[in-house]
Amino acid sequence: MSPPRIRIPAEQLHSLALALLEAIGMPPADAAIAAGAMVWNELRGAAGHGLGRILQVQERSGAGGLNLEVDWTPIRESPSTALIDAQNGWGVVAGTRAMRIAIDKARLNGIGTVVVRNSDVTSAMGYYPHVAVEAEMVGLAVTNSLPLMPPWGGSEVLLGNQAFAIGVPASSHPPLVFDSSTSAFNMGRMRQAALSGERLPPGVALDETGAETDDAEAALAALRLLPMGGHRGGGLAIMWEVFTGILAGRRSTTEVVGMQQLDRTQGLSLYVQALDPRSFLPYEEFLFRVDRLISQIHANPPREGFDRVRVPGERKAEFEADYRRRGVPVPTDSLERLRTLCLDRGVVWPW
Amino acid sequence: MSPPRIRIPAEQLHSLALALLEAIGMPPADAAIAAGAMVWNELRGAAGHGLGRILQVQERSGAGGLNLEVDWTPIRESPSTALIDAQNGWGVVAGTRAMRIAIDKARLNGIGTVVVRNSDVTSAMGYYPHVAVEAEMVGLAVTNSLPLMPPWGGSEVLLGNQAFAIGVPASSHPPLVFDSSTSAFNMGRMRQAALSGERLPPGVALDETGAETDDAEAALAALRLLPMGGHRGGGLAIMWEVFTGILAGRRSTTEVVGMQQLDRTQGLSLYVQALDPRSFLPYEEFLFRVDRLISQIHANPPREGFDRVRVPGERKAEFEADYRRRGVPVPTDSLERLRTLCLDRGVVWPW
Repeated sequence: MSPPRIRIPAEQLHSLALALLEAIGMPPADAAIAAGAMVWNELRGAAGHGLGRILQVQERSGAGGLNLEVDWTPIRESPSTALIDAQNGWGVVAGTRAMRIAIDKARLNGIGTVVVRNSDVTSAMGYYPHVAVEAEMVGLAVTNSLPLMPPWGGSEVLLGNQAFAIGVPASSHPPLVFDSSTSAFNMGRMRQAALSGERLPPGVALDETGAETDDAEAALAALRLLPMGGHRGGGLAIMWEVFTGILAGRRSTTEVVGMQQLDRTQGLSLYVQALDPRSFLPYEEFLFRVDRLISQIHANPPREGFDRVRVPGERKAEFEADYRRRGVPVPTDSLERLRTLCLDRGVVWPW
Repeated sequence: MSPPRIRIPAEQLHSLALALLEAIGMPPADAAIAAGAMVWNELRGAAGHGLGRILQVQERSGAGGLNLEVDWTPIRESPSTALIDAQNGWGVVAGTRAMRIAIDKARLNGIGTVVVRNSDVTSAMGYYPHVAVEAEMVGLAVTNSLPLMPPWGGSEVLLGNQAFAIGVPASSHPPLVFDSSTSAFNMGRMRQAALSGERLPPGVALDETGAETDDAEAALAALRLLPMGGHRGGGLAIMWEVFTGILAGRRSTTEVVGMQQLDRTQGLSLYVQALDPRSFLPYEEFLFRVDRLISQIHANPPREGFDRVRVPGERKAEFEADYRRRGVPVPTDSLERLRTLCLDRGVVWPW
């Protein structure tokens, strides 16, 4: 039984998130970025990356893992690239600031790429390309994570599940937002399978002995995910480690720490890239062509087991359209946790 | 029974390819590029992209599908991007020239990206990042293809199998070269399965009715491949169409033509990108970090069914080391076809 939910307008969630983040000690400009990302995720039905993250900001900054006072000036720059040291600051702020710099460089030079080192929680990858899409750019973001996957053919965990996302502006349809891990299952899906007792399909996870398993509980205990598409996803995961941990010049693979260790800095890396389609064709023509591609996909007759053919990000865009109109449905127990936090931090509870 | 093979030094294969391509009418500078790519593939055990492609150049240019007289000047340029119209020229020449431009821009500005429109055969994607790796850059290349895959959930073919490759320089190990399609099986693997009568695993292909099949013959007849990793590879395939056919502003999806139609222009697109690691850290440090990553992967204990844990491109690098030393083993029937072509074109047969 899921708890009752209350519909709250996105603007009110944003004000609350902003007030709480500032009360926790995040500088106002950073809090505005973090709140924006949280509300975007709430609007798209991804509450796991929503306002609940405020508690994580509080816990991690309180315990010492997360630094709230960051100088975001790039430490290295070229006309089309930059390197940011996030100084263990909130990854969403780091990645968004990185993407903004990439966008500015893309506007001048066609493409811009920024690498971030020493980052805390990077949350949902889709948000960074969304920032690029809002600026009429094609966006790409990649992160590494604590070790969750053995390299392809191996039995011991080494690589993160290396989430990445690509966003593309459209006009008569919502933008394309592709957001994926390089593991066959992401952690959320694995937890779901464990809860429901569902058997895992082949090629999803190893158990603690390094043998393949169809038991989600054993898979969660072992945390040795298998890559999507076998050696293909396995190869891509290695390449994404180069784009993140290696290029960032700090922690990589087994040196990266999970977010559950509240007092330890995570040392995540991010790679973000903005590409201006105007470098290649007029923007209106670009939009027309993307719209046509989406329409072609929608017109494809679904095969058995599918009600219709969708494009990446489409379900989340449907949530967004509904939630913008009718408010975001927030579980009452989540609200209760936020209310407690407001009391603790002296923030006026708005309802 | 495979035919007997003769070991031939790479340099001799290169001279032969060059002479033949020039005799067919390819300008010398372009022939040098095309021959270089063919020999690179021969050296890496990928003879399907080797000197046999010379016959394809002859057939396609003779029938009118392939144009040998191309002005490669970019038609659009910004500090870090360029657009090349390949005018239906050989895709390998287009992609290599595009990557060289991307490298020059990356040297100046940190990153360079070039899109190619109206291209003929693009051959193995791995070659383009190899060109970047030779210039001490991280390279990325993506192409589209004739329709081979339905969009995820669909039953009718729409997207190409969207091959892509990433290359990374290393120092004490051979470079990383990741080369993949976004389909679960590539065409070569599918033909192999059909020949051997092997049943396909789940998630590989649909038959002509749009239902999933484990029969490789039925899969080859239908040509409706399924993406690697289900919706993940399916989403990536759509994104890669944006990076290629959509950004190139010419043909995309169902408008792209296969190489077997000799008298028709293919209209493929390419996206290539070079990234200078020096934008983020000293080159020696970058190499050290890549080497360490490769060593970590090699040290991972293999799981059941694997003799050891390898990195992308490793098997091909082993072929290359051997073939450079002892010559490339070329089947005598392939040599016979090349000898006939030499006779036709008035090229002296070197052996």
